[in-house]
Amino acid sequence: MSEFDLIRKFFAAQAVARDDVIVGIGDDAAVLAPPAGQQLVVTTDNLVEGVHFAPGTDPAAIGQKALAVNLSDLAAMGAEPAWFLLNLTLPQPDAAWLEKFCAGLFAIASAHRVQLVGGNIARGPLNVAIEAHGFVPEGEALRRAGARPGDSIYVTGELGDAALALRHRLGTQPLPESDFAAVRERLDRPTPRVREGQLLRRFASSAIDISDGLVADLGHVLEASGVGALLVRERLPLSPTYRAHLAAAGWDRALAGGDDYELCFTVPARHDAEFARWQPKFGCRVTCVGEIVSGPGLQIVDAAGNRYEPQQRGHDHFAAAS
Amino acid sequence: MSEFDLIRKFFAAQAVARDDVIVGIGDDAAVLAPPAGQQLVVTTDNLVEGVHFAPGTDPAAIGQKALAVNLSDLAAMGAEPAWFLLNLTLPQPDAAWLEKFCAGLFAIASAHRVQLVGGNIARGPLNVAIEAHGFVPEGEALRRAGARPGDSIYVTGELGDAALALRHRLGTQPLPESDFAAVRERLDRPTPRVREGQLLRRFASSAIDISDGLVADLGHVLEASGVGALLVRERLPLSPTYRAHLAAAGWDRALAGGDDYELCFTVPARHDAEFARWQPKFGCRVTCVGEIVSGPGLQIVDAAGNRYEPQQRGHDHFAAAS
Repeated sequence: MSEFDLIRKFFAAQAVARDDVIVGIGDDAAVLAPPAGQQLVVTTDNLVEGVHFAPGTDPAAIGQKALAVNLSDLAAMGAEPAWFLLNLTLPQPDAAWLEKFCAGLFAIASAHRVQLVGGNIARGPLNVAIEAHGFVPEGEALRRAGARPGDSIYVTGELGDAALALRHRLGTQPLPESDFAAVRERLDRPTPRVREGQLLRRFASSAIDISDGLVADLGHVLEASGVGALLVRERLPLSPTYRAHLAAAGWDRALAGGDDYELCFTVPARHDAEFARWQPKFGCRVTCVGEIVSGPGLQIVDAAGNRYEPQQRGHDHFAAAS
Repeated sequence: MSEFDLIRKFFAAQAVARDDVIVGIGDDAAVLAPPAGQQLVVTTDNLVEGVHFAPGTDPAAIGQKALAVNLSDLAAMGAEPAWFLLNLTLPQPDAAWLEKFCAGLFAIASAHRVQLVGGNIARGPLNVAIEAHGFVPEGEALRRAGARPGDSIYVTGELGDAALALRHRLGTQPLPESDFAAVRERLDRPTPRVREGQLLRRFASSAIDISDGLVADLGHVLEASGVGALLVRERLPLSPTYRAHLAAAGWDRALAGGDDYELCFTVPARHDAEFARWQPKFGCRVTCVGEIVSGPGLQIVDAAGNRYEPQQRGHDHFAAAS
């Protein structure tokens, strides 16, 4: 099967068909009509076999996660997703693999009404790069800069389950099968907080998505905003499964494990009422984990108020090599 | 050196700074302001080590070509380039490699005033994916569909030199060193016909860029337009170097060699005068190589009018594997 046949067979038939796609798949480039008064929000991220996922991983999970991590970045900007492009490098044109991959990819695309408008398939080591586009009303994008002393720090959902699942899979901390089953989807099929991100535009002073772990990603917010933060370790939202293994797992999976794809955001006190009004619209729990302070850096304290220093600060692709 | 340090050191310092980039590198996503009345044109393409270039290739050439092939796609739509994102997967954070890569990348970015607005660096087998954005006035994008019987078929520049250079490099058809020097830049540093593509909007009925060879890419135009074509082999624009090796190289390098990154476009007779008026603005030669006909398929004839069938129809990543 040729590259063109592959593209036709698997990628040209998708459920989403948006009015703002003037030219989609099948020309030299896509032609798109951004809505008037909106700014364009664009991000790209990739998944590499052997780095982000193990050989043999369910292709549907790869397809879903490859788009999810990009939608998570759009969510962190408060953007409404619209379109994406796919750059797929794979060793051979394996129809069974592609069918599953596309099922996962298009399931999440349909759920968020994002349309695949272009891409490229090349031969080589498995690498899935996606670039996602969304909109925000002019001037309303959520930035990392913007947190001010006194703002409360919130996170969506629960932290650390993906890291627990990964440790089970790597054999470093095996879980009972039923517990692994309870957390594995958090690693394989993270839920981008797309609707929540758009709600945040009403009251958040800053936002970021937690892909490298809360400590590392909140650190980006602090650096961009020129502020510090005080986190209370015991306030971290943990799943029942994580809590059951807390003694063995420790807090660092939740603080710095990575792959959570939750949102971390700050809310000024003057917006507390507005936040409370919109909180019922959130599709997940939202937890206050600390406060922005004027002093530099991130301080973590335990329930007794003693300083806690995580042994791990976050995920960095090249930290070990440098 | 960490991923963030790498990004800061090599990618945050670029010469192009556009007013329409509201948020560039360094947040969860870029925020961009598309101009009113324009449509957005978006494309993505990648270069994989061992597939698109050999290990040891000059990193500056990889950087330049990775953007050039995307700008070529924008040119084929008649778009003015504006922004790009980079998804770079590389085995280790090699500062010397990155410095050269960025020099090549930013040289062509500056020449076309396109700004790097975001991206991602991951560890893994070397793979350079770029996604480029441009604009066209509403409704003016050049399509593959649009060629009509009677339209003349043109190509920019000269065809086949990149294929000759590749055959020299692979050892299948060695050239004298001075001849290789004359064609190697056509393989390593193709020139996207960005300005020419924008001029085409005034008179072309269809356009495509020639990345997989003229026969394959013109074939896409014919299929999308529902027409056929008659090409005259001897009209193909060849460089003096190619012409000197024509006896040994044959016509198929120019017809189907790939990696030319020239534009192929069609012009209706009613636009001949307009085309003639603008042709002096082209930065390269433009050659009429044939005509669109109503019958299906592509017919190639030699100077004597005899049918000629190329042995190779074009580049396909997966054709050999399927």
